[in-house]
Amino acid sequence: MKLSEVAERIGGELKGSGEEEICGVAGIQEATVGEISFLANPRYAPQAAETKASAVIVTEDFDKPCPAALLRVKNPDAAFAKVAALFYTPPPLPELGVHPTAVVAGDVKLGKEVRIGAQCVIEAGVRIDDGTIISPQCYIGYQSRIGKNSRLYPQVSLRESVTIGDRTIIHNGTVLGSDGFGYSVNSKGVRTKIPQIGTVVIGDDVEIGANVTVDRARFGRTVIGNGVKIDNLVQIAHNVEIGDHAVIVAQVGISGSTTIGSRAILAGQAGLAGHLTVGEGAIVGPRSAVIKDVPDGVYVMGTPAMPVAKMKRTHASLMLLPRLKGRFTELEQKVKKLESALAGSGKKSTDNFES
Amino acid sequence: MKLSEVAERIGGELKGSGEEEICGVAGIQEATVGEISFLANPRYAPQAAETKASAVIVTEDFDKPCPAALLRVKNPDAAFAKVAALFYTPPPLPELGVHPTAVVAGDVKLGKEVRIGAQCVIEAGVRIDDGTIISPQCYIGYQSRIGKNSRLYPQVSLRESVTIGDRTIIHNGTVLGSDGFGYSVNSKGVRTKIPQIGTVVIGDDVEIGANVTVDRARFGRTVIGNGVKIDNLVQIAHNVEIGDHAVIVAQVGISGSTTIGSRAILAGQAGLAGHLTVGEGAIVGPRSAVIKDVPDGVYVMGTPAMPVAKMKRTHASLMLLPRLKGRFTELEQKVKKLESALAGSGKKSTDNFES
Amino acid sequence: MKLSEVAERIGGELKGSGEEEICGVAGIQEATVGEISFLANPRYAPQAAETKASAVIVTEDFDKPCPAALLRVKNPDAAFAKVAALFYTPPPLPELGVHPTAVVAGDVKLGKEVRIGAQCVIEAGVRIDDGTIISPQCYIGYQSRIGKNSRLYPQVSLRESVTIGDRTIIHNGTVLGSDGFGYSVNSKGVRTKIPQIGTVVIGDDVEIGANVTVDRARFGRTVIGNGVKIDNLVQIAHNVEIGDHAVIVAQVGISGSTTIGSRAILAGQAGLAGHLTVGEGAIVGPRSAVIKDVPDGVYVMGTPAMPVAKMKRTHASLMLLPRLKGRFTELEQKVKKLESALAGSGKKSTDNFES
Repeated sequence: MKLSEVAERIGGELKGSGEEEICGVAGIQEATVGEISFLANPRYAPQAAETKASAVIVTEDFDKPCPAALLRVKNPDAAFAKVAALFYTPPPLPELGVHPTAVVAGDVKLGKEVRIGAQCVIEAGVRIDDGTIISPQCYIGYQSRIGKNSRLYPQVSLRESVTIGDRTIIHNGTVLGSDGFGYSVNSKGVRTKIPQIGTVVIGDDVEIGANVTVDRARFGRTVIGNGVKIDNLVQIAHNVEIGDHAVIVAQVGISGSTTIGSRAILAGQAGLAGHLTVGEGAIVGPRSAVIKDVPDGVYVMGTPAMPVAKMKRTHASLMLLPRLKGRFTELEQKVKKLESALAGSGKKSTDNFES
Repeated sequence: MKLSEVAERIGGELKGSGEEEICGVAGIQEATVGEISFLANPRYAPQAAETKASAVIVTEDFDKPCPAALLRVKNPDAAFAKVAALFYTPPPLPELGVHPTAVVAGDVKLGKEVRIGAQCVIEAGVRIDDGTIISPQCYIGYQSRIGKNSRLYPQVSLRESVTIGDRTIIHNGTVLGSDGFGYSVNSKGVRTKIPQIGTVVIGDDVEIGANVTVDRARFGRTVIGNGVKIDNLVQIAHNVEIGDHAVIVAQVGISGSTTIGSRAILAGQAGLAGHLTVGEGAIVGPRSAVIKDVPDGVYVMGTPAMPVAKMKRTHASLMLLPRLKGRFTELEQKVKKLESALAGSGKKSTDNFES
Repeated sequence: MKLSEVAERIGGELKGSGEEEICGVAGIQEATVGEISFLANPRYAPQAAETKASAVIVTEDFDKPCPAALLRVKNPDAAFAKVAALFYTPPPLPELGVHPTAVVAGDVKLGKEVRIGAQCVIEAGVRIDDGTIISPQCYIGYQSRIGKNSRLYPQVSLRESVTIGDRTIIHNGTVLGSDGFGYSVNSKGVRTKIPQIGTVVIGDDVEIGANVTVDRARFGRTVIGNGVKIDNLVQIAHNVEIGDHAVIVAQVGISGSTTIGSRAILAGQAGLAGHLTVGEGAIVGPRSAVIKDVPDGVYVMGTPAMPVAKMKRTHASLMLLPRLKGRFTELEQKVKKLESALAGSGKKSTDNFES
């Protein structure tokens, strides 16, 4: 594809020849002749001078040296995503229908154009709607349901009665519907399992990363709303409810019965105690430990998590602490000297200091 | 089942008609006509007034308004677990015997009423005792042994020579017996693998969550005692030993050769350094980082973990720090003024202050 | 094998009879007659007195009581590893060639002496070189390539176009090449997936633990260099680059586009923000949260991570804080008394204190 055609498709302003043949995309450092790259983060601007790319997508006000043709756009990041898609050939899908090595129960209901990959196991009572792709080696438990045009990557496993909506993507190794962690305990510290007989309900347009675990409810439902995006290795305990369009970054853990408001963001490695409410649009900073409710729209951080301004104030004081300690000892010395000075002056009132 | 019959089965005192037909259980907010719910946490008491449940299990002293019939019991939580079990129909088990798609070595010894699900791979020398269920797509490595009435959910994998006791439950995607993380390192920082030739031994009545990893010992055994309960995404390194009835909550990581006492509790996302001893009945708070031994029965918390009273005192001081800083600056000013006041009074002793 | 022969093979100095027949290895506490053990950590020296082992490998200057024959060496740890290997019988490998239950695309290229285990799925365009072992139930995506003498344990899954080098080991349940976590977001907080069309490239002599996740690049490559060792449950985001011989301990999370220098060490449960550079040979302490670049060779620790000396100073001050608070209140009292004492003395200058 000629560079001029690329420019036309993404709607940018071209500076340089449009005749160059573009055959692929790459990062600014890795790109070579015939490839197009981009520059969104000003941090990487110095690399533009040395790029071997044939063209670079830049912001409208970009003014650094660059040997490549420039394509000026409002949002280089978004423009590059479009360009990358132009040159991307996706891998082939599993064949239409059921692979001969898959084990599918007799009463399973499959919609139109469903694909069931090699060595899947689909238990009785399952329903999978039109256009959904189940990659090889997945396990779909008894009476689970998956909507339209969803996609499960290899080795996903769903326990019984899990529901997944439309256009939802689940990555490899993720487990949906494992038992919640619930026990009664006797006086000797011996635990007895509390049956976990609820389910997991996952909405439309959700994406869940690899090796995530979502526990089924003790009773009722663990809920993941529409449009929620969950990164890898996240733990979601029983009876958690996650509002629409919330974002949960890698390695977050959410304890039982906690509710996450819609459009809330939980940054990487955060941990949330149980039975809490995180408000709509709230943000929990990376690695923060949430132990009480977070109001709507509030940004909390730290261990325990507190509003971010307070956390920063506290942290700044903490950093000053070693110096403060020195000043404090000095001040104690001064006061001591003041005391003896006053005592030496023979006034009655100095008696008070001997407490 | 009539409500009166439910009351009889769980032994509570019924207030209201026992004629109502109960056909299921649900949470206090989700329940509808024909369902029974419960109220254990006082936090949710206001919801009782608006429940649509036909009956609610409450504490003996419950006195809030509620339109539903009430079933008064000592422990609503436990009573509800019983009721829920009454209405729960578990999904069908894999068929008795070996599924035709499973690959089972010739010398494998299977007890009575063992179930081996579709597409399992069972290697040579394995023994599986009476009544145990191996769900589809599990991998049981060479010479591993599983006791009676245990259950492996789909896609569990056991490496060679792993031993599991009776009545133990392992959830989807968990890996038992992967190599411990051990290398020798040369002067250039290049690492050479130290063979990990020990095993993993798991006791009776254990439950292990989803996507957990338990490494085999370098030599000897990584041990998980009887009655231990382990949540999802936990990491247990080589040569760790976990005492009977200990509880390990989600995303905890235990480094190599650390010993956890019986009935100890490690709360979510805690991390433990290697070669430590956590005493019997000790508690490690959520997200705490344990870097030295924890005595029996002691509750530690924080990073690094310290006895919880000390941690709270330290934390309280930390929270006061920004205010303290202001007061400190003020005090310095006052002392300065005192010094000049005394200096102004012309006493010899004030010379001392000019240090 | 006679003890004298063991001594000969590992090159140690034998104290005691060499005639004893040794048939296995065990830890100092578990070992029994006919077994050889070792003592590297002085912490365990008292256990030597009570060992039932027939022989114990010790340091050259070991002088504690021990009933067993002693084998004195420079490095007992390394010597024991050698001895353990002498007595270890590894489990059988999958048969040479392709297991009849594996599903292998027609155009897959397999080198000499490749082993493909039961129920693997190998997609079109894959190439696997000489001597590599793919254990049962693995999934190798479209056009992925695996070098020579590498080993994948059961249930590893590779998405499309992933490259693995020679002599690399991947443990059970690990996912390589899942989509990076990248979305564009509109003004209503609704996210749209940004295609993740890059790849993952893994070097030679790498080892990756169980249930790890490595995301494919947004474009370009996520890179894991030669000799890198990665423990269990680690998260590596899109476009991360890890230098040769780096070490990543369990449950670490590395955010997108961060670069780890060669021979750097990231200790357990550390978290790294995105777009950072950790220098060559740098060390990130356990559970540390890295939010800015770490220079070559620097050891950082804490949340946020700072040079370890600074972190320790800050932490020491923090531990003193409760006591400091008491001393501070006392000092305020003293200053108050000094002020009234001076005021009582009737000097003009005391007026200054009433600010």
